[in-house]
Amino acid sequence: MAISVKGLRKMKETVTAKDVAKLAGVSQSSVSRVYFEGAKVSNKTREKVLTAAKELNYRPNEFARSLITNKTKIIGLVMKGVQNPFYPQVLKQFTIAFKQYGYSVLFIHTNNEEIQSEDVETLLNYNVAGVVITDAIMSLKVAEAFKQNKIPLVFFNRKLDNIDFYSVCCNNLNASRHIAEYLLSKGATNFVYISGNSNASTSLEREKGFSEILKHRNVAYRRYSSDYTYKGGYDTANKIIAEKNMPSAIFAANDIMAFGVMDALRENELKIPADLRIVGFDNIEMASWPTYQLTTWEQPIEKMVETTVDYLLNEIDVYTGLAKAVEIEGVLIERKST
Amino acid sequence: MAISVKGLRKMKETVTAKDVAKLAGVSQSSVSRVYFEGAKVSNKTREKVLTAAKELNYRPNEFARSLITNKTKIIGLVMKGVQNPFYPQVLKQFTIAFKQYGYSVLFIHTNNEEIQSEDVETLLNYNVAGVVITDAIMSLKVAEAFKQNKIPLVFFNRKLDNIDFYSVCCNNLNASRHIAEYLLSKGATNFVYISGNSNASTSLEREKGFSEILKHRNVAYRRYSSDYTYKGGYDTANKIIAEKNMPSAIFAANDIMAFGVMDALRENELKIPADLRIVGFDNIEMASWPTYQLTTWEQPIEKMVETTVDYLLNEIDVYTGLAKAVEIEGVLIERKST
Repeated sequence: MAISVKGLRKMKETVTAKDVAKLAGVSQSSVSRVYFEGAKVSNKTREKVLTAAKELNYRPNEFARSLITNKTKIIGLVMKGVQNPFYPQVLKQFTIAFKQYGYSVLFIHTNNEEIQSEDVETLLNYNVAGVVITDAIMSLKVAEAFKQNKIPLVFFNRKLDNIDFYSVCCNNLNASRHIAEYLLSKGATNFVYISGNSNASTSLEREKGFSEILKHRNVAYRRYSSDYTYKGGYDTANKIIAEKNMPSAIFAANDIMAFGVMDALRENELKIPADLRIVGFDNIEMASWPTYQLTTWEQPIEKMVETTVDYLLNEIDVYTGLAKAVEIEGVLIERKST
Repeated sequence: MAISVKGLRKMKETVTAKDVAKLAGVSQSSVSRVYFEGAKVSNKTREKVLTAAKELNYRPNEFARSLITNKTKIIGLVMKGVQNPFYPQVLKQFTIAFKQYGYSVLFIHTNNEEIQSEDVETLLNYNVAGVVITDAIMSLKVAEAFKQNKIPLVFFNRKLDNIDFYSVCCNNLNASRHIAEYLLSKGATNFVYISGNSNASTSLEREKGFSEILKHRNVAYRRYSSDYTYKGGYDTANKIIAEKNMPSAIFAANDIMAFGVMDALRENELKIPADLRIVGFDNIEMASWPTYQLTTWEQPIEKMVETTVDYLLNEIDVYTGLAKAVEIEGVLIERKST
């Protein structure tokens, strides 16, 4: 299935490589050597080509480039939740960071917790240079498909057990231990943890660190299962209130659930922090709004994004398949909710 | 610059078209005819190829396809604001809608109000099938580049003067007239409009419809310039309070600004709606949260997205360059803020 000049001339470009070659007085393959990485060409020829290209406003086609160099400048970014402002923020920062290196972001939205096979097909069909997976999980079988194709992949803000991949997270264990110690120091004696989606590593680790400290100190502790949504936090708080056994502190596994908790408590005339203290996680912009003033754990998004981008660019350059669970320390942001 | 089988074998695919041809016992060009649209092939051959491809788990490469068919399955989506939850919701719905037709979304984030030239270059270099521009503007010169390349483009939730393009908006004039009439019916006598970014068509039209009715009725009306952000609404409300000339109703050009207004008013012990009524625009999920219970205008996102997708798919099929300003009616959502 050879693709001829004719095939390329059919592209929507108004100017083709052939036109540039003609004006520059060089062969067409010289033009392609100038534009398509990894090919040698003399400075003199390069200058001729670039001058002609500028004059004609020639635009090299990314797809032709990718077929010749076997490289694309596309990063696949897989995301599920956009209702939680944390993720749109992550998408924005990745797009800005990759753009600096000439990479564009193919946005893949997945409805399920687990990435659907058609989404994986899309990423493979576009021969993406790398993949970032945020709030979704992936079966071992699917993950291996990327390894087979030597496509570097990073799990961002997620860790997968038994899957040998690179992941970048905030240090959730240290964070939740610190939050428990902090609430103890505030005099809390009866604790509640509200989990996110049960299979999310972030929720499991935040629960682990938090409960570890409390059990060690033998203080009253119980957990409620929720789902990382505002409504989940709101409904859980109403359930706790209905049980008439109020804790003195609640740690919600993310900020958006904490907002739901605060609104439900206030509807029931409960005072924050007088009646009970609330801590969230993420430090999304809304946590600083006067209506919430939520004490929370700031995720070091910039560092997390930077680490992810550095890894991917290195792997794109020379693929090693390096697997490592990178954990970056965040910081407690103290506000009026405690 | 012919691209040979060798060129394609270099792709990261584990299986090549050649392998499929070999197993199917057909020529390689038959394989490409089966996979690359617009090419004829007998049912018998097609069956042989598909069977072999399935057995080998062959994956046709999108870039090879695009070079041969001169079509990509990529839609460029340009977006600026992700802090306003309205836009992540729009991104999600577009991604889901386009996916149904086999199209993927290349996400372009623009920092400036006006789309940067490198973003336009990216869209053209990838020969995108179509473009959706949300909360950003584009110079006439840039817009023409897409016409020259016969790439259909839609301005979503934005209208551009003197630019002959297809746009899909909610009917902002009717909406804001309705909001003015509604607040008058509630007994408001002294009105304030808080604008979004001054050059955004949405803000200009919402102001026009709102002020039109109020001036006609000779009721007190004044405007404040803001920027469609929470902080913008918050700061503007504090400015109004400092001026000691409180209105009886405030219409903020979007919900997120209305939340800032409400929080500032409450910090100053002003009661909503007793002391004054607040109306927003968009009906993002947060508007229904107990802490805000904001009366607002619901943008018909589903219909707006559907209309945009239908137009783009038709133009991708047969390019006509049809320009039209489509306006879809929304509906008032009444809550406790009024």
